[in-house]
Amino acid sequence: MSDSRPVFFVSDHTGITAELIGKSLLSQFPGQAFTFVSLPFIDSQEKAEIAVRRIEAERARSHLRPLVISTLAEPELRHLIAQTDSLFLDIFPCFLQALETELGCPATPALGLAHGMSDAGQYRARMDAVNYALAADDGLATERYGQADLILVGVSRSGKTPTSLYMAMQYGLRVANYPLTPEDLERTELPECLRTYRSKLRGLSLSAERLAQIRAERRPDSRYASLPNCQAELQAAERMLRAAQIPIIETTQRSVEEIAALLKQSLATA
Amino acid sequence: MSDSRPVFFVSDHTGITAELIGKSLLSQFPGQAFTFVSLPFIDSQEKAEIAVRRIEAERARSHLRPLVISTLAEPELRHLIAQTDSLFLDIFPCFLQALETELGCPATPALGLAHGMSDAGQYRARMDAVNYALAADDGLATERYGQADLILVGVSRSGKTPTSLYMAMQYGLRVANYPLTPEDLERTELPECLRTYRSKLRGLSLSAERLAQIRAERRPDSRYASLPNCQAELQAAERMLRAAQIPIIETTQRSVEEIAALLKQSLATA
Repeated sequence: MSDSRPVFFVSDHTGITAELIGKSLLSQFPGQAFTFVSLPFIDSQEKAEIAVRRIEAERARSHLRPLVISTLAEPELRHLIAQTDSLFLDIFPCFLQALETELGCPATPALGLAHGMSDAGQYRARMDAVNYALAADDGLATERYGQADLILVGVSRSGKTPTSLYMAMQYGLRVANYPLTPEDLERTELPECLRTYRSKLRGLSLSAERLAQIRAERRPDSRYASLPNCQAELQAAERMLRAAQIPIIETTQRSVEEIAALLKQSLATA
Repeated sequence: MSDSRPVFFVSDHTGITAELIGKSLLSQFPGQAFTFVSLPFIDSQEKAEIAVRRIEAERARSHLRPLVISTLAEPELRHLIAQTDSLFLDIFPCFLQALETELGCPATPALGLAHGMSDAGQYRARMDAVNYALAADDGLATERYGQADLILVGVSRSGKTPTSLYMAMQYGLRVANYPLTPEDLERTELPECLRTYRSKLRGLSLSAERLAQIRAERRPDSRYASLPNCQAELQAAERMLRAAQIPIIETTQRSVEEIAALLKQSLATA
């Protein structure tokens, strides 16, 4: 039988950090099967006891000892969870001790500041950026390009929208996006609304095969989705962007997180 | 003089994990000032040497020893960075060792699988969910509510759109959102398009003061943004949702990450 090992992400807050670290670690064990359970908002003894019972029930049911990835800050709650029959990976303590020594002051185990609104200004900037990305999606609101940190340019379905939204949410950057239409591509020069903002422009490109596949999901058997049309559009777009010396990011094998990190890096070094 | 301590996030991939862990840790030292620098995609000896020079230059410039938060997987690259005069916090090694023992197999230090496309099916589900959230934003595409995992309901500007997008991006959940308009609120029953999907509905609410403030940014000095109008709309919405036994999440003091984690939890326990 192929058992899947239970993995618990235990946090006094959203659990996002625990989940991310846990999945990063476990991605290094590709041969193993895991079943993930999030236990967020464990911020009282009562909730910790419920979590303990969940872990113990899973332990009794499964042939495999559970893994518990914890970002609990309160020593008492940590202690409760650590007593379960599990591999307990306690993310913060060892790093906090080193930091306390280096910084010469004690840590304040404030619950889950990382994904809260503790930095209200920064949080607001992120939400403003999300609203900006929505307002300036898909060639809208070009009159607001002056406020953009970046303007993504590419043919239809080249991944501009998810990338814009992710960069807004993750980094608080204002990212507009402009689709190069077949009409735009008949010309060799950049569309007029983009020319003033050359230093903010970044192209997104991908393989014609992948683009045809993505477009076929939207409009199967259309000229829009045909491979020759995708090839022609991509070539024309690349020619236009190269002539204007706009950096182009190839996205075929990249996730939105990877594309966003590359774009952010290009901004830092521009 | 108030020096700000340099903090480097060093990663062979996007740096998202390093940044998240680092900021979680440092949020526990609220009295200290930090300057953050991301060094992503450090995946070769050459790039590691450039990173070393950046860290050393900062060390020479600053009165404070840099902190380096690393999720580098390659021992050689780690070793290079660790030799800088810094507090080097190496996130993975100690956990990986414990995991290797528990799982009885060696870790494969594949570079940065966590934010790549290694799980293509899961990645695609997330991108599909983002497209779904955009298509079913703000009361659009109600005919597709059958495909939703959740449908958020609330008055205008109660935070539905960023929450829907975040849940799509982070969890791959299909989250639609429906704005309760003044016309909807004149009735006591749920709008007809929502009635079939009662178990998927979740209300978002917030304080009238906060809502008035958010609306005033969009339309200052309008009836729409006036406190009495916000109070009336919120009360009517709450009455309608309570009568239909729809759970309501209070969002005034909560970040989009917190709201999303609460909603996800409500789904797991529903």
